[in-house]
Amino acid sequence: MTHEFDEHIALSHQDETTWVAELDAGWSVGGGLNGGYLLAVAGNAVRQTFPSKPDPIAISAYYLSAAEPGKATVHVDVRREGGSVATAAVDLRQGEETRIAALATYADLDRLGDDVRTTAEEPDLPPPDQCVPNTMAPPEVRAIAPLMDRFDMRFHPDHIGWAVGQPSGDGVLSAWFRLVDDREPDPVSLLMVVDALPPVTFDLGMPGWAPTLELTAHVRARPAPGWLKVRHATRNMAGGMFEEDCEVWDSAGRLVAQSRQLARQPRPVS
Amino acid sequence: MTHEFDEHIALSHQDETTWVAELDAGWSVGGGLNGGYLLAVAGNAVRQTFPSKPDPIAISAYYLSAAEPGKATVHVDVRREGGSVATAAVDLRQGEETRIAALATYADLDRLGDDVRTTAEEPDLPPPDQCVPNTMAPPEVRAIAPLMDRFDMRFHPDHIGWAVGQPSGDGVLSAWFRLVDDREPDPVSLLMVVDALPPVTFDLGMPGWAPTLELTAHVRARPAPGWLKVRHATRNMAGGMFEEDCEVWDSAGRLVAQSRQLARQPRPVS
Repeated sequence: MTHEFDEHIALSHQDETTWVAELDAGWSVGGGLNGGYLLAVAGNAVRQTFPSKPDPIAISAYYLSAAEPGKATVHVDVRREGGSVATAAVDLRQGEETRIAALATYADLDRLGDDVRTTAEEPDLPPPDQCVPNTMAPPEVRAIAPLMDRFDMRFHPDHIGWAVGQPSGDGVLSAWFRLVDDREPDPVSLLMVVDALPPVTFDLGMPGWAPTLELTAHVRARPAPGWLKVRHATRNMAGGMFEEDCEVWDSAGRLVAQSRQLARQPRPVS
Repeated sequence: MTHEFDEHIALSHQDETTWVAELDAGWSVGGGLNGGYLLAVAGNAVRQTFPSKPDPIAISAYYLSAAEPGKATVHVDVRREGGSVATAAVDLRQGEETRIAALATYADLDRLGDDVRTTAEEPDLPPPDQCVPNTMAPPEVRAIAPLMDRFDMRFHPDHIGWAVGQPSGDGVLSAWFRLVDDREPDPVSLLMVVDALPPVTFDLGMPGWAPTLELTAHVRARPAPGWLKVRHATRNMAGGMFEEDCEVWDSAGRLVAQSRQLARQPRPVS
């Protein structure tokens, strides 16, 4: 069975360092395509560049212009290879416009040590059937976010007040997450997961989509199959921008990805 | 008066997009030069590239090889300019070797909005004269870290146990910070400050320097003059790597910089 996520990040070779992708309209949100989806497309090209180091352990993307559905090219420039990690610069372009410029370091997660010493605390979520599904999101949210149809998300009831006009003001969102067709998570899909939830600013009473300026993700372990837990938080809104930290925990209770992005405060929904 | 930090990050023009720096041996630590110092040198070149957008609001550096004292070239490739932010790719090289590859987005911090809504908590440090100065660091630390002579650091007494063989195990370090010759902080110097303290792994009982794989810093406000407070924390050590989060607070009590790096666990001190 082919899952839609794999179809949507699929690449064909144009030449040795250039790949072609067909960006799918199903990932539209606000005025463009979801940044996590674009990161996964770029990350997939780097993955194929380093067959023996297939996992993104760190990737930093700078979002330069809004992407549109349709053809895109991904350009991979190997910057260092050798030893246990490899680094590349990667651009995702449409025509003459660069959509994202990124740097990425890859490794084989299975060949790293198996020591784990995590003091971060796993999000405490009620069981999925006691959480609020994304299918109940308000029509104005779904209208600007067709990408929500890609996901089965179950939001923590304590931080879903924004859906009924009563945001908590804490600056926190958390949810169970999986892809709608049960495609299991892997290191590349985690690059999309870290940017899949609505902006944490929803919980601060600021509706509207928040354009990402920069997003860095670390994938720290290969995720176990099943539901993921995703938690977003912000602690510093200033100068029209905010940082959004994301943690992704797998069904085995392991912290598999951490990310931080710098984003502009949401533009009001028109 | 010229301060040593400004001398050490000074650049001369080689051509329109290339700058020459003389990396100073005073920033040596472990087997190379301090990563924050290199980031400030690279950041200084981008600053001079964008005179109307002089402040690094986000910069992501990938550390490819250990730098040595002596000549380096900094290559700036403008990726987008226009609007309120500008983005460049920047390489710091020595001979044929790339030391760091980075992406950076710059703006004018004075022209961003002045709204501030910070829920992060300022580090609670005793007054500087009740903290432990870096001049009391153990000889084995100072021997591998000449860069400590650049700083006046006063460590929180609760997280200095590593200096006497009794690390707290919390994975936290905090200190007052200023440059030895009282050079006041600015947005470019903050790029060095976020990587100036010893690795947070000291507090976990793992001495030795920890090579940075990737470091992303966000500068969120122009710092007020005076002492800075710097706090490092890690919450996830796994696969031979750990993330280190850093916050820098200025003397006005504002969170002026946030960074996260992914580093390898320390190599044992030989």
